[in-house]
Amino acid sequence: MAGTDKRKQDIVLPDSDDAPAVILVEPQMGENIGFAARAMWNFGLHDLRIVNPRDGWPNEKAEAASSGALAVIQQAKLYDNTRDAVADLGFIMATTARERGQKKSVMTPNHAALEMRALAQKGPKAGLLFGPERSGLNNDDIALCDALIRIPTNPAYASLNLAQAVLLIGYEWFQAGAAARGDEEITVSARIAEDNLARKESVTRLFDHMQDMLEKSGFLHPPEKTPEMMRNLQNMFHRMGMTEQDVSTFRGVIRYLSEMDPDKL
Amino acid sequence: MAGTDKRKQDIVLPDSDDAPAVILVEPQMGENIGFAARAMWNFGLHDLRIVNPRDGWPNEKAEAASSGALAVIQQAKLYDNTRDAVADLGFIMATTARERGQKKSVMTPNHAALEMRALAQKGPKAGLLFGPERSGLNNDDIALCDALIRIPTNPAYASLNLAQAVLLIGYEWFQAGAAARGDEEITVSARIAEDNLARKESVTRLFDHMQDMLEKSGFLHPPEKTPEMMRNLQNMFHRMGMTEQDVSTFRGVIRYLSEMDPDKL
Repeated sequence: MAGTDKRKQDIVLPDSDDAPAVILVEPQMGENIGFAARAMWNFGLHDLRIVNPRDGWPNEKAEAASSGALAVIQQAKLYDNTRDAVADLGFIMATTARERGQKKSVMTPNHAALEMRALAQKGPKAGLLFGPERSGLNNDDIALCDALIRIPTNPAYASLNLAQAVLLIGYEWFQAGAAARGDEEITVSARIAEDNLARKESVTRLFDHMQDMLEKSGFLHPPEKTPEMMRNLQNMFHRMGMTEQDVSTFRGVIRYLSEMDPDKL
Repeated sequence: MAGTDKRKQDIVLPDSDDAPAVILVEPQMGENIGFAARAMWNFGLHDLRIVNPRDGWPNEKAEAASSGALAVIQQAKLYDNTRDAVADLGFIMATTARERGQKKSVMTPNHAALEMRALAQKGPKAGLLFGPERSGLNNDDIALCDALIRIPTNPAYASLNLAQAVLLIGYEWFQAGAAARGDEEITVSARIAEDNLARKESVTRLFDHMQDMLEKSGFLHPPEKTPEMMRNLQNMFHRMGMTEQDVSTFRGVIRYLSEMDPDKL
């Protein structure tokens, strides 16, 4: 997954914006703090607050693991307790796999993101609270929160690490912003309401058959242009979203064309 | 992020369902294959297909890194080329940071997930194609795809690793299924349309003030019940979504109550 513009690697964090703060309560492994910082910066979060990290602060392993998002680590703020870390924030949400009977609202990451975006217009910025890797947040920290976020997962394998949880919630927050919208709306499924989408095997065989015919026909020249020409054709075939019936029809077209009597042209 | 039911660790993968296959083309590091398998299983994906892994197959590092999702690795299928790996699939999407002028539809993960869910009713199952860690997919592999997925990220830091990309797309797929729905719908932001949400500092100070008054009043007994009682109260305060005006009002209530002339009771 390349794609970062290398010229932008010397990042400058915004002075202020409505991106929620991320508060890591008593994180254990420095690497996890670094990975969490990267996940934050992938989605434009940068206000990192750390409460009583186990191995002290600054932490070399956190810096090493934060490659490309080092500024997030370097500008992180350190606190003695969770209460101070959230003092200037407005709406605090805790990510937890268990609700522990605290009778808070439980939201999906998507719902939480929409709330944070809407609340950003109406007061101090929001905060996302994450507990220690092993034990999670204690009840006193959860008591400071307005709501809980539960990430829906496979019930047989719900285990997500700290950086993965930060990544998923950061992703939803970024998605909820207008800046993230740039999707071309197409609806493949609606178009093929009456028949089944063909197996790829059918489409690639059809394509091979056509390529074979084209080769024999002398169509594929000059030779140096052939690979690109065939790739463009192949792209067209796979963009069509053919049904098995389409493949069969198209195969007939090729056969009929290739078997034409030249005298009839 | 604990929460996995340990009794379910010996996982049994479904024989068949409509979860899309994940095809890793020429993956390099065994660890990354293992982490990708975990990310898959977090969201119920289990049909892993591997095309020409750099370090051969089976791969001990992939198995070691897949903790809890070992069955996904053990049941992975190995292929010589991408074409064979997708032969029985219907709708193939490639995750790539660049579109490379191939003129395919480009979708967000959310849009892609909705398409995959809708198409699952209409033919062979879908496939998600991921390229080698460094170079990404080559143009011939992309030519086999029906559409591309682009994950919206911070333009200054777009770099996501293989397992992160699998995690985000698996998450969207899981979300798009009815099984993932269990969200309590509340709309905090709509409720506080007229005023700003209070800073946490104001709410915690208010709460401390009240606790102080309650202590002085002799309300907090028996002592062994105090911590839980106060936590429940604190929970109520933080669930209220108070505005600064609410805090100020409530402070007045406490003051007036605490300063009442006992003779007037």
